[in-house]
Amino acid sequence: MANELKDLTKRAVNYSQWYNELVVKADLAEQSAVRGCMVIKPYGYAIWEKMQRQLDDMFKATGVQNAYFPLLIPKSFLSREADHVEGFAKECAVVTHYRLKNDPEGKGVVVDPEARLEEELIIRPTSETIIWNTYRNWISSYRDLPLLVNQWANVFRWEMRTRLFLRTAEFLWQEGHTAHATKEEAQAKAIEMLHVYGDFAEKYMALPVVKGVKTANERFAGALETYTIEAMMQDGKALQSGTSHFLGQNFAKAFDVKFINKENQLEYVWATSWGVSTRLMGALIMTHSDDNGLVLPPHLAPIQVVIVPVYKNAEQLREVDACVAPIVERFKAMGISVKYDNADNKRPGFKFADYELKGVPVRLVIGARDIANGTIEVMRRDTLEKSSEPLQGIENRVSSLLEEIQQNIYQKALRHREEMTFKVDTWEEFKEQIEKGGFILAHWDGTTETEEKIKEETKATIRCIPLDAPEEEGRCIYTGKPSKRRVIFARNY
Amino acid sequence: MANELKDLTKRAVNYSQWYNELVVKADLAEQSAVRGCMVIKPYGYAIWEKMQRQLDDMFKATGVQNAYFPLLIPKSFLSREADHVEGFAKECAVVTHYRLKNDPEGKGVVVDPEARLEEELIIRPTSETIIWNTYRNWISSYRDLPLLVNQWANVFRWEMRTRLFLRTAEFLWQEGHTAHATKEEAQAKAIEMLHVYGDFAEKYMALPVVKGVKTANERFAGALETYTIEAMMQDGKALQSGTSHFLGQNFAKAFDVKFINKENQLEYVWATSWGVSTRLMGALIMTHSDDNGLVLPPHLAPIQVVIVPVYKNAEQLREVDACVAPIVERFKAMGISVKYDNADNKRPGFKFADYELKGVPVRLVIGARDIANGTIEVMRRDTLEKSSEPLQGIENRVSSLLEEIQQNIYQKALRHREEMTFKVDTWEEFKEQIEKGGFILAHWDGTTETEEKIKEETKATIRCIPLDAPEEEGRCIYTGKPSKRRVIFARNY
Repeated sequence: MANELKDLTKRAVNYSQWYNELVVKADLAEQSAVRGCMVIKPYGYAIWEKMQRQLDDMFKATGVQNAYFPLLIPKSFLSREADHVEGFAKECAVVTHYRLKNDPEGKGVVVDPEARLEEELIIRPTSETIIWNTYRNWISSYRDLPLLVNQWANVFRWEMRTRLFLRTAEFLWQEGHTAHATKEEAQAKAIEMLHVYGDFAEKYMALPVVKGVKTANERFAGALETYTIEAMMQDGKALQSGTSHFLGQNFAKAFDVKFINKENQLEYVWATSWGVSTRLMGALIMTHSDDNGLVLPPHLAPIQVVIVPVYKNAEQLREVDACVAPIVERFKAMGISVKYDNADNKRPGFKFADYELKGVPVRLVIGARDIANGTIEVMRRDTLEKSSEPLQGIENRVSSLLEEIQQNIYQKALRHREEMTFKVDTWEEFKEQIEKGGFILAHWDGTTETEEKIKEETKATIRCIPLDAPEEEGRCIYTGKPSKRRVIFARNY
Repeated sequence: MANELKDLTKRAVNYSQWYNELVVKADLAEQSAVRGCMVIKPYGYAIWEKMQRQLDDMFKATGVQNAYFPLLIPKSFLSREADHVEGFAKECAVVTHYRLKNDPEGKGVVVDPEARLEEELIIRPTSETIIWNTYRNWISSYRDLPLLVNQWANVFRWEMRTRLFLRTAEFLWQEGHTAHATKEEAQAKAIEMLHVYGDFAEKYMALPVVKGVKTANERFAGALETYTIEAMMQDGKALQSGTSHFLGQNFAKAFDVKFINKENQLEYVWATSWGVSTRLMGALIMTHSDDNGLVLPPHLAPIQVVIVPVYKNAEQLREVDACVAPIVERFKAMGISVKYDNADNKRPGFKFADYELKGVPVRLVIGARDIANGTIEVMRRDTLEKSSEPLQGIENRVSSLLEEIQQNIYQKALRHREEMTFKVDTWEEFKEQIEKGGFILAHWDGTTETEEKIKEETKATIRCIPLDAPEEEGRCIYTGKPSKRRVIFARNY
């Protein structure tokens, strides 16, 4: 592990390689034998579980319930909604057979050609179609609405170029699918869930995000409006971290889902869907970590505090063990997850490097001399600062320190984003700035044509039109046509 | 809902139909548009979530960590372990293509014949193969062992005859996969996890189970020993509720997973795997429920207590609302999940029938007269007994009552199993008894041949050899050959 750390590429040398190595070296995830599919290792999964648990609680607080819908979707369902099929039908995993048989030539097993499905099944790339087909039987009156359902599931999109967590063929996510009696209620729900994502990102991931709406060109296939939270990574590139869609009546019409309203009239149901995925793990890693390894926000760290003993002999270790035992109990009683690592087969230096690599927010080190002095060494992972603190009451100081670290890394990420956000008013300036990274606030004429030309020439996309973008008269940086507000351009993951 | 209850088939009329109807009427699950795949509805999923949470805590208490492995498995992996391929390769979902394209004839989308995979991928029926292929890179020394990993996942087995929860093509489960340095440690782990399952079944599901070992014929494909918990349903049929496998070195050999032991020698790793699935939902429903609907054990009920107001006018309702509000708060503070249903669009009688159908353990009814008298009506779902109780301190009495119900339904199920367990010593008696259902304790000569003949003639299988079966000299009921202990025969789900 100490060697692994030594080998970690520096961010300044190659940010992309630093990320790829860090994911593997910190035991978060790895490539599997199946192209594009990852294995999420226990340490990485423990972080994902904490994210899941918190998001799930937040969803439930808004009245959402969980359910589960089938993994496989009949091929014909995908064609029902015209935009949706364009977006999702192309790169997907197709199940065509339901049986294998022994190879007649004795070489393992082969697909049984007689077990061909009448209609092929698709591994869900997203579940609007199968869910709205189900909702048809669940909804008949306004009394059945709103229907607020979420599922935690795996989905599959056959991506050609994959990167651990950021873009994988199979990924884990949650997808909320709500049904409403009115357009206004559905729109409000889509925005409400965007704010849930924003709050989660900021309070738990320490990830500042811009909340905004996507342009028509960047909308979810089948949505009337796509809301997004956009984060900035350390290299100045944007990472779309969660989206919430107002689907209008598109899926209700495609799957014939109507309800009797209060005026006793038959009407199509209004819909939203919203999701975040294991991609958030990528955002978490890339936002806070450094050349020494991961930096985890205390609110999501599987181990918040590690205690490492230093000792010369078994007697000293016993002394430290005895001193630490009640401290561990007090941490646990406070709901702080703590690990006392007194394993005898690794040197303290090795442990220090390992827990740094793993991003444990606070490290405590204690030896015989500390005990004699009534002190303990405290190291905070975000700044790597060390200090000697009184042993007495250390739990309370660590508890405050964890909150301080949480705030500090959020503020650091926020400052970075602010420093890397630029107002640009000319096309020359735009082309120059986009090479240096960051968010560019610029005027745009509102057409897909211009958006696509800018993307072609600079690889920059419109990340979003911020919800709080002030009205401001201006001229499109590309065409010079009039514009009412600035949008955010960036290169993105 | 009241109508739905009225229509529920009685158990005595048709137990199987009663079950099928109950699952749907109580809003637990339903068939989906994809053959053999179910939709788990919010109320059913809420029960499954409680089961998951509890099991997950119990696994973690034994040192197990969660991780996630790919959904898809290369076809060739299945052939690596000779017994495993026989058991699982046959009825599985095969992914052969990775792209759809627009139908040249304009009818939706078709499989793109040019997007054929070089090697077909199988949707995991179970994950031993992909996991042991991964473990090869995780294990090199005894210091890497034991490796104790679990995953919560969906799996797929192409079943021809499916029933909601009991046997579905796709189902949700957890699969633990552990790796050990010694045979003894792996065997002990397989048995430890069996006891975790047994404890969970008894303490949370109120489901008495027999812990035992499967015969060679009934073993998991690839295991040296399969341990099982077997439960008895109300119709006297057995339901295998969870299994834990000692896999020996079979998968380590198939995927070349070796480690350097403490003596510095290279050795194959020892393995276990163990799983329970949404099938447990079927066991839960069938064990306790009655002709009025579900009966849920309080430890797993999403709503433990429902409070229904009775009132003549809005003023009375306001009075009841005011009286109930602090009671609800006190229940919540005690960690009891409570629902106060003062919805004005349904009559109390309708609500009573609905919550009975949904199996809510305790119902409280309160009206103006109760408030005047300082009383509240308490109905327990298991016995349907009603009583009037003092309003003062009702939370504590309900809390005790919930525990009483939990114990009572366990004892009732246990008594049923005991009354339906028979020692049988002759073949004539065996054939007669098996028609009446129940567990038959009988001697068997230990051969697969005899086991299969008995199954052919009576449809009875050997559910297990109980771990606590006393040694007893006897003669096989079928062949008359000598036997050392009785095994459990039953017809099964």
